[in-house]
Amino acid sequence: MLLLNKEDIKKVFDMKDAIDAAKESLSIFSQGKSVVPLRTNIDIPKYEGQSLFMPAYVESLDSAGIKIVSVFPKNIEKGLPSVPAKMILLDGKTGDVICIMDGTYLTQLRTGATSGAAADMLSRKDSKNGALFGTGGQAASQLEAMLTVRNLNIVKVFDIDKERAEAFAERMSGELSRFSTKIVAAESSDDAVNDADIITTVTTSKKAVFNGRLVKKGAHINGVGSYTPVMEELDEYIVQNADKIYMDSKSAVLSESGDFIIPIQKGLIDESKINGELGEVICGKIQGRISEDEITIYETVGIAVMDVVTAYKIYEKAVKAKIGTNVDL
Amino acid sequence: MLLLNKEDIKKVFDMKDAIDAAKESLSIFSQGKSVVPLRTNIDIPKYEGQSLFMPAYVESLDSAGIKIVSVFPKNIEKGLPSVPAKMILLDGKTGDVICIMDGTYLTQLRTGATSGAAADMLSRKDSKNGALFGTGGQAASQLEAMLTVRNLNIVKVFDIDKERAEAFAERMSGELSRFSTKIVAAESSDDAVNDADIITTVTTSKKAVFNGRLVKKGAHINGVGSYTPVMEELDEYIVQNADKIYMDSKSAVLSESGDFIIPIQKGLIDESKINGELGEVICGKIQGRISEDEITIYETVGIAVMDVVTAYKIYEKAVKAKIGTNVDL
Repeated sequence: MLLLNKEDIKKVFDMKDAIDAAKESLSIFSQGKSVVPLRTNIDIPKYEGQSLFMPAYVESLDSAGIKIVSVFPKNIEKGLPSVPAKMILLDGKTGDVICIMDGTYLTQLRTGATSGAAADMLSRKDSKNGALFGTGGQAASQLEAMLTVRNLNIVKVFDIDKERAEAFAERMSGELSRFSTKIVAAESSDDAVNDADIITTVTTSKKAVFNGRLVKKGAHINGVGSYTPVMEELDEYIVQNADKIYMDSKSAVLSESGDFIIPIQKGLIDESKINGELGEVICGKIQGRISEDEITIYETVGIAVMDVVTAYKIYEKAVKAKIGTNVDL
Repeated sequence: MLLLNKEDIKKVFDMKDAIDAAKESLSIFSQGKSVVPLRTNIDIPKYEGQSLFMPAYVESLDSAGIKIVSVFPKNIEKGLPSVPAKMILLDGKTGDVICIMDGTYLTQLRTGATSGAAADMLSRKDSKNGALFGTGGQAASQLEAMLTVRNLNIVKVFDIDKERAEAFAERMSGELSRFSTKIVAAESSDDAVNDADIITTVTTSKKAVFNGRLVKKGAHINGVGSYTPVMEELDEYIVQNADKIYMDSKSAVLSESGDFIIPIQKGLIDESKINGELGEVICGKIQGRISEDEITIYETVGIAVMDVVTAYKIYEKAVKAKIGTNVDL
């Protein structure tokens, strides 16, 4: 059994690898070539926590796995991560557990990568300006993914706490200096979205984080943060007026994300407004962007197949590079 | 995160500990003080395998976990275990994975221990003769459990393959020599069951492994092997004529075990014949044996709570004794 911590993963797997894995996952998923049982949730009210168990199986890779993610907001008070996670990978040929890895970093990687895959498939090739809303735990990989797929001049980062945005921009300017993209704190939400070619929202907001009327023609938007029916980051105006809308999993988004559940409940849009899944674009079943003027939206809530595929690709590379800790159990 | 292999577990946890943990688990379970979500099964037809994910949570121990058990009969051809298993233990206070241990050995331990708990609660104190049907992977711990709770003179082991029974008896005579109980291969099924005070069946048989009419008054029977609706080890005569019948989980046995599903379907018994759960006897809610003449049956298919409780007790003792391998993930 191989153990891989965050540093191990970093040594063998970068954002470009993660985006490739994301594309493969999304395509496998949308072609129905994966098995994704219902997630199991155990509530732990005694500590206001919840543990989620998310299994999946991908026959083409002979790989199965389960990500265990716990959400314990009060861990913060103990100085512990509030969302500890581990990924357990099984060999689909034997059923044995072959690898356990840091699930928090895996989640960051694959959540950034799914937006990266979407931006690569859907944003204009000549995109120059990025906007990032939110500076929490998933923001860094969202930013890295954006820079990985397009040669951007500038990304403006917005957070309701301006100092937080400034600190994030400064830190990321260092960490992502290899891209020579200017990373700055936006003056305002309007400042961030004005002229942006790629917009990523990764907050837990219950109201629109930008004015949809300011989105320019040809822009691409990734909606990442809304994972419960009451969270709604995207301006309903832009959800109504976007030219094309794609999702990682249509059924998952429509049952989990307020970005779409709320406008549909209000009767502002109906399901026919959704063009399909990104995996369908990737495998060539449906069209993506067809003109430079279209505004596209990609909404993601995360799919377990992506964890299994990404974990498997990391495992393969780690074995080849002899990285990680082997233990006998 | 602590890693515990079979040798580590053996160093800190014996069958007596396992039987104590089994009693605690059964009592917790029958009092409704645990959370046991539905098990998730992933079929892997490409390799004729199946992976099972069995989560549970026990609030009183602040402990959650998931056992991952894969059933891949063709692994044998590759020289690999056909039922690889791992137990993943979570701290119920933080949601973090704190321990991963050998799930195969854990299963053997707790499956032996559940029968040991039943024999301890239900068999006559003066039991002297044991009978064991089956010599597969779960047989050794069944035998050890029997010897742990009663001071037996002899255990007769029956297997349809007599040589296998002889080899098993010889091996176990060595391994369990500290009990000074004679362990011998039975001449026949009748020879084994004749005069037996405690009878344990742990086969995958689809027909009765002993003649129920030969069971003597006062005997206790553990039915362990039948875990699918088509497996039926116990003679329907004894199921009909036993004085008392207990189960680990009534709902699980009645949906999984042919030992009861089949006689009920045939109309030979109905559910009212079942006295209740062993956990109810342990916590004093219902009576167990009340006379030396009663024939008692305990039927077990295994409950996930027992894995979590047993794993947690092992973990606690291993931490205290500084046994196992600590890794940072």
